Order: sequence, then C-alpha cells, then structure tokens
Amino acid sequence: MSVARPAVVRFACFLAICVLPISAGMPLDDVRQYVHDHRAEILQEFRELLSIPNVASDTVNIRRNAHKLVEMLEHRGVKARLLEGDGPPVVFGELSVAGAKRTIAIYVHYDGQPVDASKWNNDPFSPTLRDPANGGAVLPFPKPGDRVDPEWRLFARSASDDKAPIIAILQALDALKASGHPLTANLKFFFEGEEEAGSTHLDKLVMQNRALLDADVWICADGPVHQTRRQSLYFGCRGVVSATITIYGPDRPLHSGHYGNWAPNPAMRLAKLLASMKDDNGRVLIAGFYDGVEPLGEVEKKAIRDMPPSDTELMREYGLAETDGRGRPLAELITEPSLNIDGLRSEYVGPEARTIIPAEATATIDMRLVKGIEPEQQLARLIAHIKKQGYVVSEQEPSREMRLKYPLIARVTSSQGYKASRTRMDLPIAREIISAVTRASGRPPVLIPMLGGSTPMAIFESATGLPQIGVPIVNHDNNQHSSNENLRLQNLWDGIEVFAAIMTMD
Amino acid sequence: MSVARPAVVRFACFLAICVLPISAGMPLDDVRQYVHDHRAEILQEFRELLSIPNVASDTVNIRRNAHKLVEMLEHRGVKARLLEGDGPPVVFGELSVAGAKRTIAIYVHYDGQPVDASKWNNDPFSPTLRDPANGGAVLPFPKPGDRVDPEWRLFARSASDDKAPIIAILQALDALKASGHPLTANLKFFFEGEEEAGSTHLDKLVMQNRALLDADVWICADGPVHQTRRQSLYFGCRGVVSATITIYGPDRPLHSGHYGNWAPNPAMRLAKLLASMKDDNGRVLIAGFYDGVEPLGEVEKKAIRDMPPSDTELMREYGLAETDGRGRPLAELITEPSLNIDGLRSEYVGPEARTIIPAEATATIDMRLVKGIEPEQQLARLIAHIKKQGYVVSEQEPSREMRLKYPLIARVTSSQGYKASRTRMDLPIAREIISAVTRASGRPPVLIPMLGGSTPMAIFESATGLPQIGVPIVNHDNNQHSSNENLRLQNLWDGIEVFAAIMTMD
Repeated sequence: MSVARPAVVRFACFLAICVLPISAGMPLDDVRQYVHDHRAEILQEFRELLSIPNVASDTVNIRRNAHKLVEMLEHRGVKARLLEGDGPPVVFGELSVAGAKRTIAIYVHYDGQPVDASKWNNDPFSPTLRDPANGGAVLPFPKPGDRVDPEWRLFARSASDDKAPIIAILQALDALKASGHPLTANLKFFFEGEEEAGSTHLDKLVMQNRALLDADVWICADGPVHQTRRQSLYFGCRGVVSATITIYGPDRPLHSGHYGNWAPNPAMRLAKLLASMKDDNGRVLIAGFYDGVEPLGEVEKKAIRDMPPSDTELMREYGLAETDGRGRPLAELITEPSLNIDGLRSEYVGPEARTIIPAEATATIDMRLVKGIEPEQQLARLIAHIKKQGYVVSEQEPSREMRLKYPLIARVTSSQGYKASRTRMDLPIAREIISAVTRASGRPPVLIPMLGGSTPMAIFESATGLPQIGVPIVNHDNNQHSSNENLRLQNLWDGIEVFAAIMTMD
Repeated sequence: MSVARPAVVRFACFLAICVLPISAGMPLDDVRQYVHDHRAEILQEFRELLSIPNVASDTVNIRRNAHKLVEMLEHRGVKARLLEGDGPPVVFGELSVAGAKRTIAIYVHYDGQPVDASKWNNDPFSPTLRDPANGGAVLPFPKPGDRVDPEWRLFARSASDDKAPIIAILQALDALKASGHPLTANLKFFFEGEEEAGSTHLDKLVMQNRALLDADVWICADGPVHQTRRQSLYFGCRGVVSATITIYGPDRPLHSGHYGNWAPNPAMRLAKLLASMKDDNGRVLIAGFYDGVEPLGEVEKKAIRDMPPSDTELMREYGLAETDGRGRPLAELITEPSLNIDGLRSEYVGPEARTIIPAEATATIDMRLVKGIEPEQQLARLIAHIKKQGYVVSEQEPSREMRLKYPLIARVTSSQGYKASRTRMDLPIAREIISAVTRASGRPPVLIPMLGGSTPMAIFESATGLPQIGVPIVNHDNNQHSSNENLRLQNLWDGIEVFAAIMTMD
C-alpha cells in the first residue's frame, strides 16, 4: 500500500510529470521487438479466444471462456482458478514475484454484449482480419514472418471490449519473460464474466472474496483510449442511481372528448414535473442537487484543461447544433452530477394513438453521481423535489382511497445505485503508472480525472478502499456494443508495451 | 325546412319548454301497450341481429349485417338499398308518407368495436339475457306472455352501441302501424357500417350521395342517455384535430454517462414544450387558442345550468380527487376547446430502461374544437406556439444539415381533423323534437348543448348544412366499447316510445 508523502513533495512530483515525463524502468525496445517478431502467434492466440461465444447468458460458452482463460493463465505460470457465485464465474489468478515492490491487481471482463449476427459483415465469433484502407477486404491471418500492417483491424465480438486487454496482459508476460526482464510487482488477475449483463453478482462475489483482493492498486483494463489515439488513463467514474416516476390520472383511460378539459392528464403533469427539474441550459434545479460534491483538485482541473479538445468533432458526429452547459466542454461537464431522462411512456403515439386521457404516465431518469454524493442521498433530493411540487410520493401503486384523497400522486421506485469512484491523480502509485505509460508510448498519456459512465471500479473501491486506475488500450472507433466490433492492431501492439511497462515499474 | 320566427316568439316558446313541456301529438299509451304485449318478439328480432358479428374489418359478416338490415327495413315497407363505397356499405332506406309535414333522416351505425372474447362472460355474439339483481344469472329468452323485468339486461356486442336504436326505430314503426297511428314525417335511414373503425370512408360516401340526404333534420341515434337515466338530447359535438410532435436529440441514443450534462435530452425538451402549453388548471396557454369561439346562447347556457349534477359521482367513479378547470362543471368545460396529451413515447421506462440520452421523444396530442374554430386554424396556432419556443418546425424527419444548423427542431404531423357541429336549441325543429321526447317520457329531457366528443354529425352538417340532433336511448352503464356490453331492457322499451313520438310529431 502507498504511504502518503507531505503535500509539498507531492506537488513537486506532479509538476515533474506535467512538464517532462519521468523516464524510469527498463527500456521497452526488446518488448517491442518481441511483439514485432510474434505478431502472427499473438493474433493466433487472440483468434482462438475470440472464437468462443461470450454472451453472459450463454452459460455453456461463458464457462468455455472461463476454462480457456484458466488454461491461458496457467500456461504463463499464473496460479488460476474460478471464483464461483450465482452468475458466470470470475477467473482469478495470482502471480507472485520474488522481491516484488508492490502488488498490482488487474480487472478485465471476458463477456461481451449480445450480438445480432444479421448486422455483421462476418460471424461475430469467427474473427476476421480486414484492411480498412482497402474497403475492408478480408485478409488471411498472417504466418510467422508475414507482413502485418498496424492499421489492419480484427473484427469479432469483444475484439475490443474487453478481450483485447487479456491478450495484451498475457503477451506482455511472454515478452518480458523472453526478454529476460523481471517483473517488479506481484500480479493478481480478476476477469469478470457478466459485466455486459450489468455485473449483477459482482458486488457479492467481491465481498465474499475480499481477502484475496489486497493490492497497491487496482487497474481497470476496460474502455477505449482518447479519440486522438493517445494512450489514456482514468482515475474514477461517476456513480449512478435510476428512478422510475409514474404519475396518475383517472383510474382508466378516459375519452378525451367526453372528459377533456376536466379529467387531469397525467402525461401533462409528468411533463410539468420533469420540466421543473432542469433549466434550459441543463442545470438541475432540484434543491441541493450539487451539494457535497467533492471538488476536483488542481491536478484534476489541469488534466481537464490539458485534454485534447474534441467537442466540435463530437457535435458534428452526433448531429448536434448546440450542447447543454452553456458551451462548457464535455470533459468538464461529465465530472459533475447529472440528471437525464432515459425514457417516457404513456399510452400510444402516432398512428397507434387513441384520443384518450391516459390513466398514467411514466418516466425513467438516471442521475449520475460524483464523489461526495451517495445514491440514496440524491434519490432523497429527487423525492423531496417531487413533494415540493405538491405530490404525495409512494413506492406502491396508489390505492383507491389515496387516489380519492390526493390530487397529485407520484409513484417512485429506484435502482440500488452505484457509487462514484475517484482516485487522486497525485498519489504516488498514480504517478508511477502515469510514468510507466509515458515510457511505453513516448509521450504523456491523456489524463482523465473521471469517466462520465459507471464502471465496476466503484465496487472495488467500496470493498477495498484501494486506488483504482483505468488503463484502456483499444481504439475509440471500435464499434463497441454494436455490430462489427473491431480492434486496430496497433492498439494491441501498444497495449502490450503499456502493460509490460506497468509490470516492470521501478 | 324550418322558417325562422321573430326572436320574441322563439324566446316565449323556449320558456314554455323549460317551464312545462309542450304536450302535442297523439297519445303514446297504445304504443306502450304494443311494446308490453310484444316484448318477446322484439327481443327475438334483436337477438337475431346481435348474433351476426359486426366488426367493420370482418368484411363477410359486416355484409351479412347489411343484408339483414335491408331485409328488416323492407319488411316494414321501407325502400332500402346499399350505398357502396370503399369500406363497408351504408344501408340506406326511404319511407314516404302521404301528407308528411316534414322529412326526418336518422343516422345509426351497425358496426361494433372489436371484441376480446376471453374477457366476456358469454360469447359476445351469442346474446345472453341476465338478471343483474340475481348476480347476473342467465335467463331464458321469454316466450310471448312471459314476465319480463325491465331491469334485466341483454349482453352482446352492440347491444347498446349501436344496434339498440335500430330495433327501437323499426319496432316503433311496427307499434305505430299496429296502433293505427299515421306517421307525420317522411323517413330516411342511414345506417353506417364502420363508425367504430373511424368512419374513414363516410365523408366521401356522404358527398357522393348528397342528393339523397335532404331532410328537415338529421337525428344521430347514438350514445347513452344521462346517468340519471333521464332521456337526453344533444345538439352538437366538438370537432377534433390531432398532432404528433417529435423532438430530436443526438442522432443516435448516447450513453448517459459519457454524454449526460452535455448532449441535449429530447425527452426533457419535449416535457418543457408540453409544459408550456397549459397552466396548472388546464387552461391552454397557446396564443389565440380560444379566439373565435362562437359563444353559447342563453338557451344553451341555461341548458347547462339545468343539467343534473354528476361531477362528484364521476370523480368518485374514476378515482379523482380534483379536476382541471378550477372546479367548473364537466358539462360547461366540454363546450370549450381543449388540448390533451394522448400519449408519450421515448425509448424505454422501468425494467426495460437503458441509461441513455434518447435520440428522440414523441407526443401525440388532440385538440377538441368548438364552432368558430376550424381544425387547420387550431393546428396553425399550435405550430406558431412551438415556433415561439424557439423551434424550427418541419413535417419531415430533419436532415443532417438541419440538425447541425438548428438546436431546436420539432417534427409536427397532423390528422385531417373533424369540424365541430352545433345546432341551435331554439330552432323550431329542435323545439318540436324536445316536445316529442317530453311527451314520450313524461318529463323534459336533459338538454346537452354539445357532446365533448366528435361524431359523424359534423360530416352531415358540413355536407348538408341541416340541423343535427342527437337522440340517445341506451343506458350510460352499458360497458360501451368494452367487454360485457349490455342494454337495460327498460331503455329499449323507452326508446321505442321516443322514436314513435318523433315520427308522429304534429
């Protein structure tokens, strides 16, 4: 575990990182050479892993993946086994190193999003190599010694999300071993099998196996690098809590002719309630919504300022003429709490619509959280806001008696929620990893104080209290979660070097 | 056609109606006796008609209904034939009377709502007589001379909506003939076969057959009587125009973690747009929304004041603690234009929700219209309002160029719309019908200046310019449009007398 240094020393170190990367540890030239010489073999191992279908609900194949991973780990001398819970097993591995300076635990998930094979250009579990510069033409897998263009891409489910880091990590072990470079850290591997299905059982499994999970740092090897293709690191993520709000009108849909102007319309009431929650610039108007936010430190603020600008390009990509937040950049806005409508539902619209006053109207919203705001707390503020608009709030369907008594009734149900996670970017272990990645890629990585989304990092942070750092390696344009998911080969080659650098940090 | 009288005379007549019903025409005692003596035969004929399935899309059976109706009309000496268009045929009949004082045209529809047989206590097309006072026990159909309780109910699709008036009209002809009472009006019958499917082809069919449709008055024999079970008449209905509004966000759903606080949320924008359209009391805030409304006359206002109060009971029935309109009564509110949200749709809610920023959000609204406001006009005001909120409005999906140029884009598509219809309650023909119904039921009917809903009345009014009066006969608690639709027998017996009285007005 890391020991805190006096603030002045920390600040000096931070300056050093920003001005000039600390170059430390063994040179990576021979790792690069190893990768160059073994591209065919690396792709072959990757191809085999990607050929096993990995949707979490496919219980037979998900276990085939798990057993394959145990085998792959053991092949590298890692002591591997399955941690069983109520869902797919976790593949857990340990590699002890004599004289290790620290212990690094690495999280990856081996399951992938469901596939709609009809929308793919190849079977999602028949990995296919293609040349984007040549209209996506299919290429034969290379034999040892063949030319391999780093811009070629490998198409398969989980080619990026999230089997690529598994290959990168294991091949880094091979490269280091072949080059004679000793590891400087004990390693732990935690490969989850149901992240894309919501990590429903992760929390419990982590708690049950808490004793196995000590380390100096947890690395979350998931997500893409920055759009500029620069290596990136993230140090936290927003939490989230969802709520479903139902507003009630008459106890059955009523004819809008016979009762329109008289029977209150729950869809209109819901519209007014939702409209009361945000101003036109996206600022949330719920009392206390931003209270307690742990402010970003100077280090984090500078990191945001230093992030390569991408807003204009994203607006063009998504067809947006304007964004919320009065023009403030995305990187800054996603470090703040948010309130978002996920969906609306009341009766029918368009050709299916009937001219009725609906009996009820429902919205689901999600609220993203940052450090300093707990899920229950934000939910309580939401409910207080709804009450302030005159509503009686209940978790249940209102009874007939309630309907006759209270003009305004809102049913609010909620998800359990995820906490936010954040690791200080100026912790010694953080600086060491920044330095290692800088060494691997030859320039400082893009430092992202926190992801806007929610990751299992929060579960590990809550359970262990240990620093969590995200080390993504795949290309951002990988069609993650969609059809034709792919990995750009250069990202894999670079990823191997990144993990090799981390495993051999001074 | 009616000739207008000087205002002072009209007013005097109106007072007479309100203070004491004008009793005129032949006595109805022998009609009542005829009905009493023929209850078994009447129910038998009704049973046969209800046994033919009548969903408009069931083209074979809908024609079986039409042919059966032609046969039933011809049996009464009515010259009957089918008017063919692109949908189910209209059954059209004419009965000329020597020395007739006027011509009365009667509209009914013979199709019914689709059925979900699994939710019925009996096959919806196997008419079943039941005793509500005995737990809905099934009763045998009576034979001539058997006791028949007027509170018994006949269960079948269209038992109320809208085959009951057909039987009442035809049995009124039989009763009058048997009693030796001459008709005082030529009669025209217009039985539509796709009202419950939206009367899609009615407009065209009416225009094509305009020459057949002259009359002194059109009677719309559809809808239920007042909940107090008092006979009722209505003199118009609201029009309606619907619009579907889609608001755009990013061109694909985006991860709410990675982009929440930055990418604008179209569901939130839609909520704000909708919220801008009405105040908390249901008053529409769209500029000019109420401009041009032809105010109700004193007669109509008095009629509304005189309507039996029902708001409290309706609120209890529908589980409402409060209504829109600051406590003003339903009867008054439905004579005004309204704006209603029919449905909302954006991505998913509840367990299906994903934490994303949706790419679009859609609402369908309907606007009910009154005389003085045309569908196109109200639609133009809606669009002007949306523009005033900063939106560029288009009928098409926005192009990529539009998305990149305009922050706020709304796609608005609309239905063709129905106009409102209203017949003055103090027209001589109106007074005559009020008087006839008063005579039949022994007390003045509930006079409803206009229904909140939209009916084919507007199509006939637009095409012919003739007065339109609604004469409902069925019980309000008939489960119209739903499962276990039924008719209370007393309503049928009363309905026969009502039509007999109208057919023999002085």
